[in-house]
Amino acid sequence: MCDHCGCGDGGVVTVEVHERILASNERAAAHNRAHWLREHVVAVNLMGSPGAGKTALLEATARAAGGRLRLAALAGDLATDRDAERLRAADIPAVSITTGSACHLDAALVHSALHDPPWHGAIDLLFMENVGNLVCPAVYDLGEAARVVALSVTEGEDKPLKYPVMFHKADVVLLTKIDLLPLLPDISIERIRDALAHVMPEPLLLPLSARTGEGISSWLDWLDERRRRLFGDE
Amino acid sequence: MCDHCGCGDGGVVTVEVHERILASNERAAAHNRAHWLREHVVAVNLMGSPGAGKTALLEATARAAGGRLRLAALAGDLATDRDAERLRAADIPAVSITTGSACHLDAALVHSALHDPPWHGAIDLLFMENVGNLVCPAVYDLGEAARVVALSVTEGEDKPLKYPVMFHKADVVLLTKIDLLPLLPDISIERIRDALAHVMPEPLLLPLSARTGEGISSWLDWLDERRRRLFGDE
Repeated sequence: MCDHCGCGDGGVVTVEVHERILASNERAAAHNRAHWLREHVVAVNLMGSPGAGKTALLEATARAAGGRLRLAALAGDLATDRDAERLRAADIPAVSITTGSACHLDAALVHSALHDPPWHGAIDLLFMENVGNLVCPAVYDLGEAARVVALSVTEGEDKPLKYPVMFHKADVVLLTKIDLLPLLPDISIERIRDALAHVMPEPLLLPLSARTGEGISSWLDWLDERRRRLFGDE
Repeated sequence: MCDHCGCGDGGVVTVEVHERILASNERAAAHNRAHWLREHVVAVNLMGSPGAGKTALLEATARAAGGRLRLAALAGDLATDRDAERLRAADIPAVSITTGSACHLDAALVHSALHDPPWHGAIDLLFMENVGNLVCPAVYDLGEAARVVALSVTEGEDKPLKYPVMFHKADVVLLTKIDLLPLLPDISIERIRDALAHVMPEPLLLPLSARTGEGISSWLDWLDERRRRLFGDE
């Protein structure tokens, strides 16, 4: 842990303080996880840089799922209700979590937001759209069943190598905005796969475009498989 | 300040601990600032999301300055020496600061990196390329004379509203990758200006493309003006 933040390593703040913070987060995450297992909800922690296309991905997911899955979302942002508004317009019941100046969601924030959810009845999938940040959210377990990182083709091929903690802990990386590839002659999906293979124990990259819908069906298949793995064929 | 991090607000870690951290950073930043003023160096804290094009901007700056300005750089990243390598290849003497898992540069890290700089003799401009992150770097003064935020056109128009702390404190925002605008029919520079006007006390947006060179001369003019303001016409 660093001296400024729960996300680094270093000096001034004592190790004990950081351990207390993370231990407290782990307890809240375990509570969330038990709740979702009991309710048969697949909770997804969706992370990525600002502008990686996380909200657009969820909009496209709702379009493609076409009511087959009951979706809901928490939208984490420093300020504004914009992402939650976009998601509600896409027929995903959604709640904002505004963090002020905090750089990530934590399990207690998520728990508080779920005390009185605006959706009624059971849901199949809960997306927690984290604050746009490739560093700090990686450290905070929210109790999720799946950790998903959105990486856009415009961010460059070296991001997995430069932000290894985030990619090391991901279950799947979604390569977003592939409709922009014609204007990016220097970007190669194979080189992104190579970079991922250096930092991700079981590399899995799904290229897709929220705008054109390309690749979205593979992403839905992945979510289905994750649901079967957790809860069997229901 | 948040309970996990120097970047938010909240609970578990005491306010005193955070105040101690930021006070310590302020002292180191004041030391850096005094040093650069004495040496007639304009120090620039360059921030932005991962993949906003910070390194490419510096490469383009070196090409356009064509030896007229003596540049040097510190490249902050969690891991790898890649940005510093790219900058050295672009004839910018550069040192890496690898932060491990920490999400921002701080004034002490910068000070340590400058104890034995690889450049010889005086420089005019020192770029400190911060860790890719639109949240945490905003809180840590490095002793810079200018705070510059790179925002790429692919990140969406609402980023100033969603990450207000970063944009509120910026001296100038560079809108990067404008060569991609033909593939982004939904993105309007005017709407980005409108969003900036809500959070930036004296909004200043310079659209540019590191690839085509468009707009780079306005950016060099801005740097010249900043240099004159600090040190007069030398």
